Amino acid sequence: MRANERKNNELRSVEFIPHYIINPEGAVLVSFGNTKVICTATIEHKLPPFMRGQGKGWITAEYSMLPRATNTRNIREAARGKVSGRTMEIQRLIGRSLRAAVDLEKLGERTIWIDCDVIQADGGTRTASITGAMVAMKLAFDKLVADGTIAESPLKEYLAAISVGILNGEVILDLNYEEDSAAEVDMNVIMTESGQFVEIQGTGEEATYSHAQLLEMLDVASQGIQQLIAMQKQIS
Amino acid sequence: MRANERKNNELRSVEFIPHYIINPEGAVLVSFGNTKVICTATIEHKLPPFMRGQGKGWITAEYSMLPRATNTRNIREAARGKVSGRTMEIQRLIGRSLRAAVDLEKLGERTIWIDCDVIQADGGTRTASITGAMVAMKLAFDKLVADGTIAESPLKEYLAAISVGILNGEVILDLNYEEDSAAEVDMNVIMTESGQFVEIQGTGEEATYSHAQLLEMLDVASQGIQQLIAMQKQIS
Amino acid sequence: MRANERKNNELRSVEFIPHYIINPEGAVLVSFGNTKVICTATIEHKLPPFMRGQGKGWITAEYSMLPRATNTRNIREAARGKVSGRTMEIQRLIGRSLRAAVDLEKLGERTIWIDCDVIQADGGTRTASITGAMVAMKLAFDKLVADGTIAESPLKEYLAAISVGILNGEVILDLNYEEDSAAEVDMNVIMTESGQFVEIQGTGEEATYSHAQLLEMLDVASQGIQQLIAMQKQIS
Amino acid sequence: MRANERKNNELRSVEFIPHYIINPEGAVLVSFGNTKVICTATIEHKLPPFMRGQGKGWITAEYSMLPRATNTRNIREAARGKVSGRTMEIQRLIGRSLRAAVDLEKLGERTIWIDCDVIQADGGTRTASITGAMVAMKLAFDKLVADGTIAESPLKEYLAAISVGILNGEVILDLNYEEDSAAEVDMNVIMTESGQFVEIQGTGEEATYSHAQLLEMLDVASQGIQQLIAMQKQIS
Amino acid sequence: MRANERKNNELRSVEFIPHYIINPEGAVLVSFGNTKVICTATIEHKLPPFMRGQGKGWITAEYSMLPRATNTRNIREAARGKVSGRTMEIQRLIGRSLRAAVDLEKLGERTIWIDCDVIQADGGTRTASITGAMVAMKLAFDKLVADGTIAESPLKEYLAAISVGILNGEVILDLNYEEDSAAEVDMNVIMTESGQFVEIQGTGEEATYSHAQLLEMLDVASQGIQQLIAMQKQIS
Amino acid sequence: MRANERKNNELRSVEFIPHYIINPEGAVLVSFGNTKVICTATIEHKLPPFMRGQGKGWITAEYSMLPRATNTRNIREAARGKVSGRTMEIQRLIGRSLRAAVDLEKLGERTIWIDCDVIQADGGTRTASITGAMVAMKLAFDKLVADGTIAESPLKEYLAAISVGILNGEVILDLNYEEDSAAEVDMNVIMTESGQFVEIQGTGEEATYSHAQLLEMLDVASQGIQQLIAMQKQIS
Repeated sequence: MRANERKNNELRSVEFIPHYIINPEGAVLVSFGNTKVICTATIEHKLPPFMRGQGKGWITAEYSMLPRATNTRNIREAARGKVSGRTMEIQRLIGRSLRAAVDLEKLGERTIWIDCDVIQADGGTRTASITGAMVAMKLAFDKLVADGTIAESPLKEYLAAISVGILNGEVILDLNYEEDSAAEVDMNVIMTESGQFVEIQGTGEEATYSHAQLLEMLDVASQGIQQLIAMQKQIS
Repeated sequence: MRANERKNNELRSVEFIPHYIINPEGAVLVSFGNTKVICTATIEHKLPPFMRGQGKGWITAEYSMLPRATNTRNIREAARGKVSGRTMEIQRLIGRSLRAAVDLEKLGERTIWIDCDVIQADGGTRTASITGAMVAMKLAFDKLVADGTIAESPLKEYLAAISVGILNGEVILDLNYEEDSAAEVDMNVIMTESGQFVEIQGTGEEATYSHAQLLEMLDVASQGIQQLIAMQKQIS
Repeated sequence: MRANERKNNELRSVEFIPHYIINPEGAVLVSFGNTKVICTATIEHKLPPFMRGQGKGWITAEYSMLPRATNTRNIREAARGKVSGRTMEIQRLIGRSLRAAVDLEKLGERTIWIDCDVIQADGGTRTASITGAMVAMKLAFDKLVADGTIAESPLKEYLAAISVGILNGEVILDLNYEEDSAAEVDMNVIMTESGQFVEIQGTGEEATYSHAQLLEMLDVASQGIQQLIAMQKQIS
Repeated sequence: MRANERKNNELRSVEFIPHYIINPEGAVLVSFGNTKVICTATIEHKLPPFMRGQGKGWITAEYSMLPRATNTRNIREAARGKVSGRTMEIQRLIGRSLRAAVDLEKLGERTIWIDCDVIQADGGTRTASITGAMVAMKLAFDKLVADGTIAESPLKEYLAAISVGILNGEVILDLNYEEDSAAEVDMNVIMTESGQFVEIQGTGEEATYSHAQLLEMLDVASQGIQQLIAMQKQIS
Repeated sequence: MRANERKNNELRSVEFIPHYIINPEGAVLVSFGNTKVICTATIEHKLPPFMRGQGKGWITAEYSMLPRATNTRNIREAARGKVSGRTMEIQRLIGRSLRAAVDLEKLGERTIWIDCDVIQADGGTRTASITGAMVAMKLAFDKLVADGTIAESPLKEYLAAISVGILNGEVILDLNYEEDSAAEVDMNVIMTESGQFVEIQGTGEEATYSHAQLLEMLDVASQGIQQLIAMQKQIS
Repeated sequence: MRANERKNNELRSVEFIPHYIINPEGAVLVSFGNTKVICTATIEHKLPPFMRGQGKGWITAEYSMLPRATNTRNIREAARGKVSGRTMEIQRLIGRSLRAAVDLEKLGERTIWIDCDVIQADGGTRTASITGAMVAMKLAFDKLVADGTIAESPLKEYLAAISVGILNGEVILDLNYEEDSAAEVDMNVIMTESGQFVEIQGTGEEATYSHAQLLEMLDVASQGIQQLIAMQKQIS
């Protein structure tokens, strides 16, 4: 039995607090159970060198955790003097996913900086980050439209992300830290409101999975994502 | 006239939310107006090499800001690969100040790690950090006593910190960012509940100040600190 | 039409030169068309700290490219002073994949260091690296068995990796650089000889893909992988 | 009793050797007892980015110690690959203090680089550095006036720095290393020739100090500073 | 007796495989016995800042070893985050030597980047690198002439490099790793086809050498170099 | 004509000030004309890991320049966060040279740290550093003998270093900065009092040199070195 009598295909309690901090162009505090992430979107009216002169914009992301987001204290990456491989992997995933939801030409020669700072971690920080960053980005786009900078929102479709896995042979949705640590297979699925895949990353943890298990995981994830998108659409 | 009709010797609205995140041994979200800092205290049952074998403990601090704590986005220190001089100065100040309030021998051979993460900045982040860290540390000490690890709290006295400055020739308390940027003199005062100084740092910003101005600043700061300590004492 | 009249579901010319360099415990030069990678396996009779005392071994990987593996010169990561996010992502993937093929308890308290150095790059460097590293690791295991260090090879199953993608709406196998740059969807599949998935990473490049396209890509990839594994099994 | 029968309010033997090295625009070797610092001033006819276009100049400082300035060898910061927090704190203090003595508009769009290299250390390296840097900067200003680059020296007032502290309950001036290590309170005071404060940094070392003690320390420091300024004024 | 019955003044088996990899403007795999180095030359049509506007070109070199080029695995310099002193010394030597063979004015405002990547090491990696880099650079010059970018090859003379040393009192040529580790004196000689010295670096390894020994080493080295140059001249 | 009517085979004015700073076990300020270097020797009663358990000692060196040792200001290596290739090359040369003069077994399991800090630079900083470091090391050895730590000085022979070069076709000794910048060939020679070579590094600067020129340079250098050693022997 999962914590709080949660069913295998049930999300944890999900909450979005938009405008949680006041300076960014878009900001939200997103919670997936005890996982809490401050997601912000910053509009910069210039581009990184490799994107200039193509008449389109760019979206990039950074991710970090407070030292005591977790049960034991993590050394800060700033103190270590370098960003870990795990962090790089996550921030590349966030940026890549969001770009799939946006018409970069409508954005124009601008960069959207996404920052996801995990203040409390209990599994699923990358899926909560993507799902919250989607909202922060949407709020920033709304501001660009509201102040007349661009005519139309560059958002093509909403998207959200969720984890799914196999634990003791059963497919479960939205794993918390304890479940994630014990799972045989761990998969992150990112999908749009129209049901298209943006990214699938499915990893056997010193294990493997069959074609049938893959299909079952994708089905459960897909239902969770549609629930998340329904909640995102309430926010403005 | 100051924002919100604040008087020259008046603190901004101050709030402490204890146990704001659940993993650390002590945690508080402290607000001085729009400045908001998550302060946590972590107990580690070992010491840095230079402190070992002296029969006493150590307190050290780290400080950081989210990229969009401020009005424009700051590059992360982890991305730069090094901690700035300003950050180092602040984290050394936080650690040094708290050590003055603690009987390190009663703490025993343990390290208290203080983390101050500014999620929103509007001036006074270092004084809010020290004042909040004092509370987080106190909560961690209470836990050590409650679980029987140590017999008695190592806290000797409460302390708090506040900024004071001279703006257009007038002494003002608890400067926000706009006031701080324009002030001729900027001073941080850290003081105990018994009115002893722990640290004074008073800096003319391309300016200087007289002996009389120094005394007036210390007087105003002292009153603000006593109000902060009264609030700290309500928390458990 | 693909280069060299290749069919959509056809691998490029694949070659393995085992024992290509003489010092490592296992070594192979693997070519997928013009992509050439030196893969080596080093046996170290100790473990990283986080793995000690669990009675099992560890497999970790590093990946690099010569500056002129590509058409224009890349700055060396050693000269930059840090490893890129792309490199970290790839070396984490190589290590994680290989661990899924190995019984770490049979390996005993040893580390296998995999090094994949790309001397020429034309797309698919990560799948060639995994497929070659599998062979280098197998040769190193054979040596451990041959010299009596361990009784039985810790290899559970062979595995191989291949890329598959969607270009102009068609599913194609084993993309070269030019195809990869133009593809709408890019997927890497890692699979064992028994047909179980080890890892799937499917990314829409500013695009998305449907459930049906996913299934078609997995099918084509699966056939390519079985051909690669048949070749791996010839080598000793 | 202090070393060499020094009285509590007495400076150590102070010496300035101007033009000690020949390349810089201003240079002095300053000694406070056994503490010896080479201070140089370099004129650069450009500004850091954040200062450009404001019609005024900038003064910045760097500080370092030779490895055997001290009794045991310190690892070089260049070998460690980073500057310590202590060094950053000191070099920020030197730059900030000197800027308070200068009319930056008269300096024009130029940077003065101050370098303070401690060749022998016996306490008070930061106060000796500031006091010597004042002289090096003054010599560089004289050169700018002499060669007609600027019409008038941008120096508003001389300033000097001295340490003061409380040891065994007594206020003492200009602490050497042994005294500094044992002192309960350590304060650095930077003051102009007209008696205005530029900076006060007073720190209880795991201790605190009263209002009365603060006043006594400032009084003793003030007398020491006026003696240092009298000596600075002899130099050309 | 030396390995393979080699005489004291005899080179190891030397081989050049030109065009070993296909992307660079010049490329060769050079072998001195078991030492194997991939040498490439890249033409860049711009200059480092310090060389601009002088109407002449620049040649610079980088050097690296694969982790298992040697008998035990070396940590990558990219993973360490910095280039070792030994590597820096070697890459400075390669660049400096090649510049002596080239008329930089005929090269025009271009940079030649030399990359020497040791894939297998058995002593003499720096002399093999220089000797191979000479060939890679020559091939790149030929390409510049062939495509009409420059009228005439900037190569003034061929040059090659070889090691010579004293082992058990005897002068020996082209030391392998085992000989190099045991030698009393180790010298690298770089010489042109006309017999002029480009660089001599002769080092007593916790030992010294006489004037007569120096002359004998130079004589033996000189003969080896002329043999290498004869081989280089066959390649196109 | 050389500056100060110096003859081609004449040293600049050379001076040694022993015990120039008081903390190190050996210290000297050495001047070769306007080149001035503080050389110190530190005795550490332990060894780096790779030297342990062999019953002998180690000598290692570090080298640095003050920012304004030169005519324009150099950025500090600590500020850059890394040591330059030139610095590494020099400090490896200093350490290697000194080890050739010492019986490391007589030194016992100790490290001698040599620090050479150039406070003023006018060419020949590496030869002045080696020549001064020899004296600092000798003073430290004397202290080890005087306090009974070791029975006999581990110094086998004195050594010194000097530069020699070819300028306008003429061989000149001990080049100052201006001569060094213009020279066609630059050679550093390190030799013992018995006339044995410790190290020769002769570099054509985009030029080459003949066998006859080599011999003439070695002859002139040899005479200069014997004069330096005669001066070193006067110091205690």
